[in-house]
Amino acid sequence: MRWSKSYLFTLKETPADAEIPSHILLVRGGYIRKLAAGMSTYGPLMLRSIKKFEQIVREELDKRGCTEILMPMVQPKEIWEETGRWKEMGEGLQKLKNRNGHEFCLGATHEEVVTDFVRKDVKSYRDLPFNLYQVQTKFRDEIRPRFGLMRGREFIMKDAYSFDRDSDGAQVAYKNMYEAYKAVFERLGVKFRIVQADSGNIGGNQSQEFHILADAGEDQLLVSDSSDFAANVEVCPAIDAGQVTPKNETPKAMEEFATPKLRTIEDLAKATGVPANQLVKTMFFSASDDAKLNLNPVAVLLRGSDEVNPVKLKNHFGLSNPPMLLTDDEVLKITGAHPGSCGPVGLKIPILMDQGVKHLTNFIVGANKDDFHLKNVNAGRDFQTVAVGDFRMAKEGDLSPDGKGKLKSYRGIEVGHIFYLGTKYSRKMNANYLSAEGELKPIEMGCYGIGISRTVQACVEQNHDKDGIIWPLSIAPYHVHIALLDPEEGKLPAEVADQIYTELKKRNIECLIDDRNERPGVKFKDADLLGMPLRVVIGAKGLDNGEVELVPRRTKQMVKVKALDAVEHILAWIEKERLAEMKGSH
Amino acid sequence: MRWSKSYLFTLKETPADAEIPSHILLVRGGYIRKLAAGMSTYGPLMLRSIKKFEQIVREELDKRGCTEILMPMVQPKEIWEETGRWKEMGEGLQKLKNRNGHEFCLGATHEEVVTDFVRKDVKSYRDLPFNLYQVQTKFRDEIRPRFGLMRGREFIMKDAYSFDRDSDGAQVAYKNMYEAYKAVFERLGVKFRIVQADSGNIGGNQSQEFHILADAGEDQLLVSDSSDFAANVEVCPAIDAGQVTPKNETPKAMEEFATPKLRTIEDLAKATGVPANQLVKTMFFSASDDAKLNLNPVAVLLRGSDEVNPVKLKNHFGLSNPPMLLTDDEVLKITGAHPGSCGPVGLKIPILMDQGVKHLTNFIVGANKDDFHLKNVNAGRDFQTVAVGDFRMAKEGDLSPDGKGKLKSYRGIEVGHIFYLGTKYSRKMNANYLSAEGELKPIEMGCYGIGISRTVQACVEQNHDKDGIIWPLSIAPYHVHIALLDPEEGKLPAEVADQIYTELKKRNIECLIDDRNERPGVKFKDADLLGMPLRVVIGAKGLDNGEVELVPRRTKQMVKVKALDAVEHILAWIEKERLAEMKGSH
Repeated sequence: MRWSKSYLFTLKETPADAEIPSHILLVRGGYIRKLAAGMSTYGPLMLRSIKKFEQIVREELDKRGCTEILMPMVQPKEIWEETGRWKEMGEGLQKLKNRNGHEFCLGATHEEVVTDFVRKDVKSYRDLPFNLYQVQTKFRDEIRPRFGLMRGREFIMKDAYSFDRDSDGAQVAYKNMYEAYKAVFERLGVKFRIVQADSGNIGGNQSQEFHILADAGEDQLLVSDSSDFAANVEVCPAIDAGQVTPKNETPKAMEEFATPKLRTIEDLAKATGVPANQLVKTMFFSASDDAKLNLNPVAVLLRGSDEVNPVKLKNHFGLSNPPMLLTDDEVLKITGAHPGSCGPVGLKIPILMDQGVKHLTNFIVGANKDDFHLKNVNAGRDFQTVAVGDFRMAKEGDLSPDGKGKLKSYRGIEVGHIFYLGTKYSRKMNANYLSAEGELKPIEMGCYGIGISRTVQACVEQNHDKDGIIWPLSIAPYHVHIALLDPEEGKLPAEVADQIYTELKKRNIECLIDDRNERPGVKFKDADLLGMPLRVVIGAKGLDNGEVELVPRRTKQMVKVKALDAVEHILAWIEKERLAEMKGSH
Repeated sequence: MRWSKSYLFTLKETPADAEIPSHILLVRGGYIRKLAAGMSTYGPLMLRSIKKFEQIVREELDKRGCTEILMPMVQPKEIWEETGRWKEMGEGLQKLKNRNGHEFCLGATHEEVVTDFVRKDVKSYRDLPFNLYQVQTKFRDEIRPRFGLMRGREFIMKDAYSFDRDSDGAQVAYKNMYEAYKAVFERLGVKFRIVQADSGNIGGNQSQEFHILADAGEDQLLVSDSSDFAANVEVCPAIDAGQVTPKNETPKAMEEFATPKLRTIEDLAKATGVPANQLVKTMFFSASDDAKLNLNPVAVLLRGSDEVNPVKLKNHFGLSNPPMLLTDDEVLKITGAHPGSCGPVGLKIPILMDQGVKHLTNFIVGANKDDFHLKNVNAGRDFQTVAVGDFRMAKEGDLSPDGKGKLKSYRGIEVGHIFYLGTKYSRKMNANYLSAEGELKPIEMGCYGIGISRTVQACVEQNHDKDGIIWPLSIAPYHVHIALLDPEEGKLPAEVADQIYTELKKRNIECLIDDRNERPGVKFKDADLLGMPLRVVIGAKGLDNGEVELVPRRTKQMVKVKALDAVEHILAWIEKERLAEMKGSH
């Protein structure tokens, strides 16, 4: 492709609303352009990368017996009411009414649609198992879209659904998809981790996430330094490394003391001399899926050095979504004090206690009176709890839950997720089959997603430098960027570029030729920004010596080669790079 | 692909809501399944055909320098207000509000989005020309969806947009797309016509439609029997073949007479003995784009044998959409009579007269009094007109407007449409560029659509028989359907089928193997229904003689060939068929 024949516009300025490197670089490179918050147009280069990634996904799924279909993006309310998710999905589900007053939503996910599709055709155990997938534009009404495609409203997703006779079959299907996803991300050639994950409001009880590692990742991953244990912090069990030794002190008399303006754990620790991990803080949540209808306030106690894990609370209470923190006003109404001066003593609401607090005696808590705390407080004597358990966030340095080693922390971008669903949807929607024994049984299901557009941006987030993108070969829009320095037609550099272009095309190596009338500096800057894996510089000066320059984007270590051998050198470099990528050596 | 590994379910029954053959066959063959009115899931076979057609379209566009991008399906209200189409598009534009109260619509077309995309990047004449296209799911809130994908709400479309410096450039772009579309439909291998068309509310003043011919087509096409003139009846000028000889009678005195229960032209002609083409009928329309706000009633006079062409009225009045007929109540209020007894004499609203009435004298019209007519009525003397012109539908037998031959009528399914837009959108949206002379100029545009999913169904509508679909090779889901009659693994028929499958795959010929445990009759019926171009029957009985059977779907003329030569015979047949298809011999 010639630059002059395509639609390529690069920007020098950093776009005002772009916060992370991949977003900045994709906009500057003309890969994406914002239409509205969370909705972007994909330019020609971006679309090439997206399609290459889609193709990798298709190949790995087809290879494993999955069947591609395409379902509608607009979905009728009725099927979402069958599963109860019309309400449960909340405001993220974009609803609409047509001219006849019928209600629909934009497809955020397709469990309902695919179950409806399947229940109309499947009758017997002979019709099972199978796995249906699609690659499709999805829509979620994100409350605060940002980071380009990373947290967009409209995005491209591959979603797959498995259908089996029984849970054994469903487990085989789940493992099949695990292998498919692993192969997809290995072929992509980027650093990724597979972690245990929460099932969200999709349902089911087994799920794993695939994360591309990147500093700007929204998720925290905890990975054992000595085994293959890995989990999203949301679900990672928290096990103290240095167990706080039970103090075994005799309970002393509880006592109120003034703590003027000491509202944070840090300030309190400084003022009292008690370390944060021996102070106890009290957090307030609404243990309800609809706080407007039913506030249901609860208090959670944990060590001052720990953080509450709302997903653990969600699972403890069996909610659809993680509970929300109470507002300061709500806390004031319940406790009589502002957050920072609150504690468990005298509370009329249920109190949960993180197991880390269990070993503490004679501890300090808020007095439920502004600027006062209580000391020598003891659980059981001074307040009662409804549950003691693991309610805190695990963190780097905790013990690995499999008993092997300690946890290390990474940031990741979630790009894939696999779920074992069981019969949650099939039971609610009457998707049954007649077993070999003549029994009517609900179909066992699994669902599996890959964020296609998100993955492509995540690759950029992991692979870039200050000058621009560094595409992996696997999904680079073009493999080679020819910087043609003297592009006048009929002249030697243009002819050499054409020859190299034609030879490479025969070998399925794709080139972008920068044939603009621009200075070399402009061309090099744009080549760095756009990020094709290999730059080939062809100019009159070099050709005086019969030479062209090869510049790998990642290392920027230029080598001069004979123009006549350029194609061989390029092919060799690409072959070497491809192997390195597959081995994950970058 | 093996039947047993895919997701294929055929139906014996005709679906209740399917009215035309292609809809019935696509549902019976499991190609599509309805989710809601106007929204269908594409099964695996349908998706293969759709993708093959998309690929043909992409290749022909890429070859001609078009650039593929992908724009959002959800579009903000603001840009549609810039062009005035937020209101003008009417209720077919599906609108929605997000959680923050912002208004959006689902993309029915993308002129606004692409113009917004382009105006952010294009600065100078050096950035022009170019052509951007996308393949995307679109949504229109059809008031009465029917015929499967033919008049659906959600559908797949390829839309392209050209951007040029001036109208000469835009004409070159238009012709380029004309050639691309012609090549696309030629490669498809079906019978089609290119006709002059109306621009609808897209704007611009030059447009042509591409129609696949089929009896169930919603459009009437008029084609000269002696030249290449062809037009959609909507825009075809109407020229009488046998000119009605002016009677040159002396105007007589107007006279009222009773016509009890004579409300139709047929009844009136029978009762009076005056032929329908010498009677004059009066039709009432609302010459307004918003009849609720502003009724603006007008009367149209034409011969009893003619029909009003609302598109000609639309263009006469400069409306966005064809005007609606008045209701009986509205007519009664204006004329004092019910339709069937109305006429121009004494009307207070503007009267338009079709040129066919011009030559009539002393004619009969309704008296604006139920069950009475007037005779000896003469235009000019008894009523005044505001316009005389071509307001009727042209019809078979009329003269071709290019002066060559007479018109013949066809039914067609509109599958492609090309428009020259001029600067309608660029002016309204300030999409300008700086010319070589330093002048700020609006970009010249064109837009070009192909209904992808609609085309695939239209191929079926044109190519089927009572037993099922007859796919053209170009987009058949598979080229060959192997009916494996004795599918037990390890037995000879299964082995022969596998060999043939493998050999054909090497030559890029795609096979579907029916490996189910079903009787031959069931397999043959399903093969006919699914419609792959060539059926190959492999069974133990035939193999006893070393033979397999080849059955072309279109002719059903079976030939037996040696199993050892089967692959050669199949390749030869496909090659022959491909040539026949390209020549349009079917």
